[in-house]
Amino acid sequence: MKRIVSDRPDGEGPRYRARIPGVSPENSEVFREPHRIRGAEADGSGRLSPRAACELMQEAAARHASALGVGYDELVARGLAWVLVQWTLSVTRWPLWREDVLVETWPCDRTERTAARDFLLLDAAGGELARAESVWLILDLGKRRPVRLPEEVRTIRPPRGPLGSGTELARLFPPEPVEESLDLSVRWADLDLNGHVSNVAYVDWVLESVPRDLLRDGRLRSLALSFRSEARDGARVRVERGPDPGAPDGGPAFRHRVAEAGSARELLLARTAFVPAA
Amino acid sequence: MKRIVSDRPDGEGPRYRARIPGVSPENSEVFREPHRIRGAEADGSGRLSPRAACELMQEAAARHASALGVGYDELVARGLAWVLVQWTLSVTRWPLWREDVLVETWPCDRTERTAARDFLLLDAAGGELARAESVWLILDLGKRRPVRLPEEVRTIRPPRGPLGSGTELARLFPPEPVEESLDLSVRWADLDLNGHVSNVAYVDWVLESVPRDLLRDGRLRSLALSFRSEARDGARVRVERGPDPGAPDGGPAFRHRVAEAGSARELLLARTAFVPAA
Repeated sequence: MKRIVSDRPDGEGPRYRARIPGVSPENSEVFREPHRIRGAEADGSGRLSPRAACELMQEAAARHASALGVGYDELVARGLAWVLVQWTLSVTRWPLWREDVLVETWPCDRTERTAARDFLLLDAAGGELARAESVWLILDLGKRRPVRLPEEVRTIRPPRGPLGSGTELARLFPPEPVEESLDLSVRWADLDLNGHVSNVAYVDWVLESVPRDLLRDGRLRSLALSFRSEARDGARVRVERGPDPGAPDGGPAFRHRVAEAGSARELLLARTAFVPAA
Repeated sequence: MKRIVSDRPDGEGPRYRARIPGVSPENSEVFREPHRIRGAEADGSGRLSPRAACELMQEAAARHASALGVGYDELVARGLAWVLVQWTLSVTRWPLWREDVLVETWPCDRTERTAARDFLLLDAAGGELARAESVWLILDLGKRRPVRLPEEVRTIRPPRGPLGSGTELARLFPPEPVEESLDLSVRWADLDLNGHVSNVAYVDWVLESVPRDLLRDGRLRSLALSFRSEARDGARVRVERGPDPGAPDGGPAFRHRVAEAGSARELLLARTAFVPAA
């Protein structure tokens, strides 16, 4: 009970408080949603947890897709579903418990089978807290295979360019050598509303392989996830961690690999980079 | 991807949508907060997860305590903190993903060292979804011992009577015999914003010991938790489950015990009762 979070913003309330959540009138293709960080969304550092940050953004994506007519209901009626394949999160400052934030998201680049969507997390003054880039495909639920993006998705006009450099998302590599390895069981609590392992469960698994003092006293600066295959309920998974040599600013960075413990079937590759404790 | 949740309420929006979250004008001592069930709050059954239900209610409790001047900030400034000791949740119907709900909470009975707080979870038509009763004490963070409730807490007038029978919360018993036992590690993701294991992490641990088909196809009808001691970050905990003979309506019911794996130090006793699959 020593680490007390005291520097929370407070007072008059953020300037965007009066905005209506959802699709804003000035730009129907950018979805905006204000949110106050809840107690259960903060982690052991007193700040928004990486998992909750990803949940906030993905919730906005789901709501936006529904508003654009390509949401869960529309797709599932045709035996289709959105599947996340790549996720990159970069954080400038982690918001604190009870802080007011604004989530923005919009569709951007597309290929024949993949659709990209970008995200911004802003503070009450409009300053950038975090940004994320994501790549999705649409799965035929019967055949378990990706399909060509349907007409309704291909005709959505990207309202803004991509957040990143415009090049491909960073290629991820398995850890080599493996410094740390832990086995976890897929729990009931890891499943999402379709009975599949939730995207964000992997965030917790990957972070569990990071040295604890870095989670407690440092800050996650970036997180990249590449989803390869689906973990099964009740399975044992192995989370491996090794050093990442590519961190340009010298902060601690890691490569991670999640595989089925028995079969070594690869489920996820990830990269994390941290700002060490001051 | 077979279990599709289709019976979601929709349409005009709930009648309480216009209400301001927080302390309502007609009764300043009942806190109300509307909420739409988010994707990450649904579990593998497509309904609000028990963990998220407890989080929703405890978030409202924290906000209400702050509104009443006895919240986190006021207490921690004096070296004190609220600690949950007992929690009983009874569910009539689990709300679905995207359903609009209303959380209500108010303080009720008190003893010299314990304060009770009740909760209702209502659907958009005002119908009861779930109710919860809770007992809290205030801990001296330096001495790690409960204190007599401070004046500011003792002078809060309970606006409603207790939800339950008015008698003591049900006494809980350890499982005897133990039918199922699993060992879990306390993960970084289990820690709350104070760096302690979150109350709601225990909910997931207890449910993990329940037969999976009952979680998937049945419904949790009630959950009672009695917190005994604090789990430490990184510790191994053992979750034990046994039958509960006391279920009056014959549905499956279990006793649970969570203890430190090494020392057998008891951390939690729990009871769960289920409605089996129809």
